[in-house]
Amino acid sequence: MTKIKGFSKLNKEARVDWVISNYLQDPKKSLRLLKSYWHSDDDVQKLHDEFVENTITNFFMPFGVAPNFLINGKDYCLPLVTEESSVVAAMSKAARFWSERGGFHSQVISTIKTGHVHFLWHGKEKELLSHFFEKIKPLFFSQTEHLTKNMVARGGGIVDVLLVDRSHLEPGYYQLKATFETCDSMGANFINSLLEEFIRIFLAEAEKSLDLIPNKIEIIMGILSNYTPDCLVRCEATCPVSYLPHDKNISSAQFAAKFLKAIRIAEIEPYRAVTHNKGIMNGVDALVIATGNDFRAIEAGVHAFAAKTGTYSSLSHAEINDDNFRFYMDIPLALGTIGGLTTLHPMAKFSLQLLGKPDARTLMMIIAAAGVSQNFSAIRSLITTGIQKGHMKMHLLNILNQLGASDLEKEKIIALFKNKVPSHSAVVKAFEEMKEGMQP
Amino acid sequence: MTKIKGFSKLNKEARVDWVISNYLQDPKKSLRLLKSYWHSDDDVQKLHDEFVENTITNFFMPFGVAPNFLINGKDYCLPLVTEESSVVAAMSKAARFWSERGGFHSQVISTIKTGHVHFLWHGKEKELLSHFFEKIKPLFFSQTEHLTKNMVARGGGIVDVLLVDRSHLEPGYYQLKATFETCDSMGANFINSLLEEFIRIFLAEAEKSLDLIPNKIEIIMGILSNYTPDCLVRCEATCPVSYLPHDKNISSAQFAAKFLKAIRIAEIEPYRAVTHNKGIMNGVDALVIATGNDFRAIEAGVHAFAAKTGTYSSLSHAEINDDNFRFYMDIPLALGTIGGLTTLHPMAKFSLQLLGKPDARTLMMIIAAAGVSQNFSAIRSLITTGIQKGHMKMHLLNILNQLGASDLEKEKIIALFKNKVPSHSAVVKAFEEMKEGMQP
Repeated sequence: MTKIKGFSKLNKEARVDWVISNYLQDPKKSLRLLKSYWHSDDDVQKLHDEFVENTITNFFMPFGVAPNFLINGKDYCLPLVTEESSVVAAMSKAARFWSERGGFHSQVISTIKTGHVHFLWHGKEKELLSHFFEKIKPLFFSQTEHLTKNMVARGGGIVDVLLVDRSHLEPGYYQLKATFETCDSMGANFINSLLEEFIRIFLAEAEKSLDLIPNKIEIIMGILSNYTPDCLVRCEATCPVSYLPHDKNISSAQFAAKFLKAIRIAEIEPYRAVTHNKGIMNGVDALVIATGNDFRAIEAGVHAFAAKTGTYSSLSHAEINDDNFRFYMDIPLALGTIGGLTTLHPMAKFSLQLLGKPDARTLMMIIAAAGVSQNFSAIRSLITTGIQKGHMKMHLLNILNQLGASDLEKEKIIALFKNKVPSHSAVVKAFEEMKEGMQP
Repeated sequence: MTKIKGFSKLNKEARVDWVISNYLQDPKKSLRLLKSYWHSDDDVQKLHDEFVENTITNFFMPFGVAPNFLINGKDYCLPLVTEESSVVAAMSKAARFWSERGGFHSQVISTIKTGHVHFLWHGKEKELLSHFFEKIKPLFFSQTEHLTKNMVARGGGIVDVLLVDRSHLEPGYYQLKATFETCDSMGANFINSLLEEFIRIFLAEAEKSLDLIPNKIEIIMGILSNYTPDCLVRCEATCPVSYLPHDKNISSAQFAAKFLKAIRIAEIEPYRAVTHNKGIMNGVDALVIATGNDFRAIEAGVHAFAAKTGTYSSLSHAEINDDNFRFYMDIPLALGTIGGLTTLHPMAKFSLQLLGKPDARTLMMIIAAAGVSQNFSAIRSLITTGIQKGHMKMHLLNILNQLGASDLEKEKIIALFKNKVPSHSAVVKAFEEMKEGMQP
């Protein structure tokens, strides 16, 4: 066992050295590789190194852009960080299509975030607990002003603190359920700091009020929730049915009918809903990452929201009213445009500049449109040519890169697979045959 | 409106030029920034540029490592790509802790993936459809051998194809539900290519068999599912209760009891479950990205799995039997160690080398352990010191970087906040005061 104590206290060079000498077959080559991914400016690299612990280098994620997005009447070029081929192309295609049909229309429905103090209390007279809570409730506001002052000045703060009885689920289980408005910051640190302060206040007051609350309060934990159904944005795109895509194989009306069926299937079949929503998140996450937000938080909240009825279902919906096609989605997005990495990561900062320095509400509306655009393109492909045609084109390029093909070789092979499925083995075979044919 | 046609056909320089001249206030500065993030080797940069469309630069994600992971008796140093502070530290701490208590024990439960052809059929005699399906079913295997040959040689291929009646949910809605074993590849292209071939076979046979199947089959789409409850891995960690953490504030037995309560709360309260599982995904995704896998696919499948009972719930569980503490988790992970970016992205390739070139099953077991380790550390913090203590230490460093603090200034401010909550405003104030104090 290659154990080490105090690894995190080593400097970066020593960390790299330990890793490559213990785990890599060719340490010199590995060292060159890791270093080749460092930023050429030492100060910039140091900044990146300090974002997290035990860093040894950077992982490059492709940074692409999708122009022609018309959202609420304003045009955008979206910064997209994704490693998956076809996503940027699909979004760009949908953006262009909808920009000629009025664009995307987004509106913020609500921006409330939630956190809890989870605790146990085994008293039998529940009124004692609720009376005690009502008595001390103002203190959660007054005794935390040093933490909320700045947020209040920006228009946010603690919205409410409630006592929730969950003892029917688990003996003695109650919550302080607190709601917050965190304005342009994602608010995780703000909320968690407040919740820990609530714990301190709650316990101190209970200690002082043994006449009011004789049974002991046992705190389990205080933590924000990434389930944010009340931090919600809606986006829709709408046009006359006759303006929908059509070609020699499918009329606009047939396209509309088939599109609605595809959505309906994602609404009723969880196996399909998961992939349908995964596609939406291809678009959403690409912007979440580009702007320095936390995609795990967004993912968890979104998928739980998709399961809120008890059956995991589609986030997006479609309908036809009076020959008008309407495609829409509600999605919970708790985002920040200040704090965290948003202004600290130079490329996240760049992304926000590219988007015109939006506030958090505007970013919610932009990202919802990104999700809708991806979903429209995915369904469009699925119900017409199939998903593989576009995907395989990029896949082909990746295989050719893997094989070390030259530009000329790439061109030839791409022409060869113009109307064929480029399975990995078929491409390798074609490439090898071409190579052999080229030999003297 | 800044519209553009043919943007994707521009070369990278022209793309960059269009973006910065149309959207950025200081195009020259932006150009320098974007270029500073390019890889110094043009060929390597070209490889990264071609992973997706419309690339203009790279987004750096910190690449850290967590040593001291003991998984199934073998030691690992995990490659972790994450932008969130505390994640790598939390995992390293748990790894060290469990390495002295037998480590993590993972086992693959199943590795089956699923895809569907979704179609409509409005015939009244359902037996006609099932008879027709049974008759042509062998063709789905025999007529796709050109696509499955290599996978079969590796021990995988099509497992089964079933006809599923979903017409009770939507009139005329049926599925071909196909299951696959894709060995060491994630299998998305393999499965999607096969499903599109199934559509071709299905329609061609229906055309030829109007006596058997008089009503028209209307294909809506063919697509793999990212819901993979049958591609499942279990990981657990176990030790005597007395070996659990303890200090002057909490005994091992109290720790165990409180830990179980924290897990129980995540099992019954969706607001908590979402954040609990989000933490697990902090660990999971860090490895998923590092190894070139698709985190949106993993996220979607995992969260839908967490909602499978109808109530969104904790992925992990804990119990005490005969004074033995057991902490375990089942998680669906459809991963690849060949194909896609896994071997194409130089840093993904490095990650797999660092892990000893695992096959897909081994990678499932490693990543499950990563999730369990993160979850253990998160709950440990939550039920003892609170989550903010560790988080805020890293947060403080980020704020200081944002303020452009020197190493000396950082040291002084860190000492100042040793026992205080470093709220953003408090740090800014302290920093400014220090600066003023330093002026002559």
